[in-house]
Amino acid sequence: MTKNIWEEFAINAKDKMPLYKQIIHQVEGMVHDGRLKPGTRLPSERKMAKLLNVSRMTITLANEEMKARGMVRSHQGSGTFILRGPRAKEVERDLDLPVEFAYPTGEINQGMDEIMRHGENTHLINLAGVGTAPEVHPGIELSQCFSEHLRKNPILLQLPSPTQGYEPLRLEMISWLKKVKIEVKLNEIMIVSGAMQGLDLISRLFLKPGDYVVMEEPGFLGAADAFKATGAKILRITLDEEGIRLDSLENMLMQFPIKFIYVNPTYQNPTGVTMSLKRRKKLLELCSKYGVLIVEDDPFSLLYFEDKPAPPIKSLGSDNVIYIQSFSKYLYPGIRLAVLVANEGIIHNLSKVKQRVDLHSNNLTQIALHAYISEGNLENHIWKLKSAYLERLHLMKELLNEGPYIHCKLPEGGVFLWCKVPKEIPTDRLLEFAVKNGFTFVPGNWMSGVGMFENYIRLAYTHPSLEWLKKGIKLLHHTILEYKEYQF
Amino acid sequence: MTKNIWEEFAINAKDKMPLYKQIIHQVEGMVHDGRLKPGTRLPSERKMAKLLNVSRMTITLANEEMKARGMVRSHQGSGTFILRGPRAKEVERDLDLPVEFAYPTGEINQGMDEIMRHGENTHLINLAGVGTAPEVHPGIELSQCFSEHLRKNPILLQLPSPTQGYEPLRLEMISWLKKVKIEVKLNEIMIVSGAMQGLDLISRLFLKPGDYVVMEEPGFLGAADAFKATGAKILRITLDEEGIRLDSLENMLMQFPIKFIYVNPTYQNPTGVTMSLKRRKKLLELCSKYGVLIVEDDPFSLLYFEDKPAPPIKSLGSDNVIYIQSFSKYLYPGIRLAVLVANEGIIHNLSKVKQRVDLHSNNLTQIALHAYISEGNLENHIWKLKSAYLERLHLMKELLNEGPYIHCKLPEGGVFLWCKVPKEIPTDRLLEFAVKNGFTFVPGNWMSGVGMFENYIRLAYTHPSLEWLKKGIKLLHHTILEYKEYQF
Repeated sequence: MTKNIWEEFAINAKDKMPLYKQIIHQVEGMVHDGRLKPGTRLPSERKMAKLLNVSRMTITLANEEMKARGMVRSHQGSGTFILRGPRAKEVERDLDLPVEFAYPTGEINQGMDEIMRHGENTHLINLAGVGTAPEVHPGIELSQCFSEHLRKNPILLQLPSPTQGYEPLRLEMISWLKKVKIEVKLNEIMIVSGAMQGLDLISRLFLKPGDYVVMEEPGFLGAADAFKATGAKILRITLDEEGIRLDSLENMLMQFPIKFIYVNPTYQNPTGVTMSLKRRKKLLELCSKYGVLIVEDDPFSLLYFEDKPAPPIKSLGSDNVIYIQSFSKYLYPGIRLAVLVANEGIIHNLSKVKQRVDLHSNNLTQIALHAYISEGNLENHIWKLKSAYLERLHLMKELLNEGPYIHCKLPEGGVFLWCKVPKEIPTDRLLEFAVKNGFTFVPGNWMSGVGMFENYIRLAYTHPSLEWLKKGIKLLHHTILEYKEYQF
Repeated sequence: MTKNIWEEFAINAKDKMPLYKQIIHQVEGMVHDGRLKPGTRLPSERKMAKLLNVSRMTITLANEEMKARGMVRSHQGSGTFILRGPRAKEVERDLDLPVEFAYPTGEINQGMDEIMRHGENTHLINLAGVGTAPEVHPGIELSQCFSEHLRKNPILLQLPSPTQGYEPLRLEMISWLKKVKIEVKLNEIMIVSGAMQGLDLISRLFLKPGDYVVMEEPGFLGAADAFKATGAKILRITLDEEGIRLDSLENMLMQFPIKFIYVNPTYQNPTGVTMSLKRRKKLLELCSKYGVLIVEDDPFSLLYFEDKPAPPIKSLGSDNVIYIQSFSKYLYPGIRLAVLVANEGIIHNLSKVKQRVDLHSNNLTQIALHAYISEGNLENHIWKLKSAYLERLHLMKELLNEGPYIHCKLPEGGVFLWCKVPKEIPTDRLLEFAVKNGFTFVPGNWMSGVGMFENYIRLAYTHPSLEWLKKGIKLLHHTILEYKEYQF
């Protein structure tokens, strides 16, 4: 490749297409026709701006979008590189019909499928999916409480089920949410079938092709799938120790038709980082200024080990924030219930969408959850969970320190560890060895929108029994050694 | 209006736009600028074809699509008329945000909202929504069975929950579906959160703007909403005593990009009509010929009073059919569970969509349903239901005959009556009087895609207690008299 390829770029300031888009377009064309090979390093932003005679901000925007699209990737310190071309679309419709699919099944992340599939294989030690530790699983207690409650009130299953949720449960949520300092009225609450459904309803109500969503890099892959299913694009922003970085956000807000910013501010999935109060305020201020919504996913914040984390962004008081609290981590994932809080107008419209999607969440589980919470059981249960998880966390620390290759920062709460392994170990390859050896985890790059974090892994420590957890970490050390040997 | 307005039509055979579309386009423009007034009768198809110098089939196609779009309506014997212009879009977003919605909230049928809202008002006698008669409600029995089952197998709530559904329940479905003569393999079955979710998943997988769906006129309004939410259009076909008419279907299949045909062949909602076996076979043959899917909604067929109805189209053996059996009518609507049967490739892809929508249906209810069915309870329960509903049906017949204005054909199964009232009574107006008097029903035109069936009502007889049911029908007679007096 000649060094002068960048000079072949034809950027025209008079063209209607914004400059950064022209740049992306040119890069795309050059990758397509082979003039730009995967692995090629892009000139620095400063140099590129000079070469193309555009502002540096234009280059930043182009790079951010190319990262979001997975066209390039950045390595801190070493620059930005063209990624390998898009993977060939999976062809696996074993149906013999002349019918085309409308849903973008080929573009969704396969990570979630694999996490689910591995989770179903009960012979594997599951360090990938987040479950509930068997020693503190509330299933039996929850169902006893439910049967007792129903015995006393046999009419309950015959009551109407509004789309916004079982009313006694929604009323209970008003006081429950005070625990996280959220003050809310009944019509600002709806019950959804898990946070995933909340994200799907929000996506369907607000997003269409051409819209943009900003989310953390790395971040929750299920959320990314829900957004992409609408045809919207995702812009990714990395985190520092205070949460999502805001330095490039304002530029993005000015340049892109952004519909909302999706964040998981407390014990973020997967990094465990908690956004500082100052950052929460600043994010809210920026989004209010640009009239952009914040979607706040808060599944872990009651699982703090010592100090309470900063309160949810929603509690800082704004109609701009849609807040989701899932019960998957506080009870167990199979319960598929979450509470969604937003301004009344948004709730009203989300309910309209939900009505066309499943009418309402099933009443049996809602009645069970209401019985459990209203008798004070959930609060007690969360104390039990925290003590069990803190014990597990200490165990993990000890076990992980037994080998030289895994480095994790201990989180202040939540349900997993974000760990770094040596640079030469791509963890999605390592996973193949792991599955062969009998355990699973989530490779870092599955949580990335731009193919980064290849030498990271997410370890959930809540699913297996203590015995299997120990065994799993031993196998992890063993598997890394095995992989390193195989490499050389 | 001059008689010659039809001669102003500018149809150009050389134009790329199909002729029938040109006609629709012209009608639209003329309604818009006021040259064609609501109520104007269109010339007969034969005459119109001659006037515009096009084939009669072109006129049929244009009329069918205009009906489907709600632009015109037909009265048998008296011709086709321009309808009143589209209603002003509801403006009710009480949110003060500069955010646009992507979901077509303004275009959805408000009927479902009203049925749900009235259902939540427990002071109203509910003849609108389909519920489970209180004297045979299985709630207590189901939950006792569930608790007992869980006590014996305390690990159940800790098991992984695959997106396709709780495996023991799916296995149970293999034998359950034999009752309706459907022979199926495990990978051809998935569990969904109610038939509504099944229809939503199918719509999202297959439909995009520009696609067409054929459904019965009148037909299930929830289904129409699910299809329209994707931007697809609906073509409506009326029924005769053997089910959906097939005489115009083949023309439609040739002319429109139809993705699937949605039918409810047994005790059709709302007419109660059951499609004959001959018609089922012919429909399947036509759809196979044109490579079009059939979506078969079968929520009532086990609720036959005397003779078993014809077997489901799915049982006639074809990969072209997606079959949905809801448990809402066999147990109770709040349970939100249905079984969906299709070719393995379709199930695989529907599961991918479901994974992004809610991961999986909640396990508590799936385990409860499995326990209930596997112990033979559901089969016994359905016998109880049938005897209770037959009793109610006879009661209804007697009560309805007490007044002179309501005429219903008794159905051979299912959960409601489709009744005709005098022509001068538009039943959506009547509903306002009914609600004031303390009861509800579904006005016929809510089930229509083209504003027909204005003097029909759908009466569900399964929801209220027997006492309230009697009271409700008395109130119905009274309300019709009141409305007639008010009119004159």
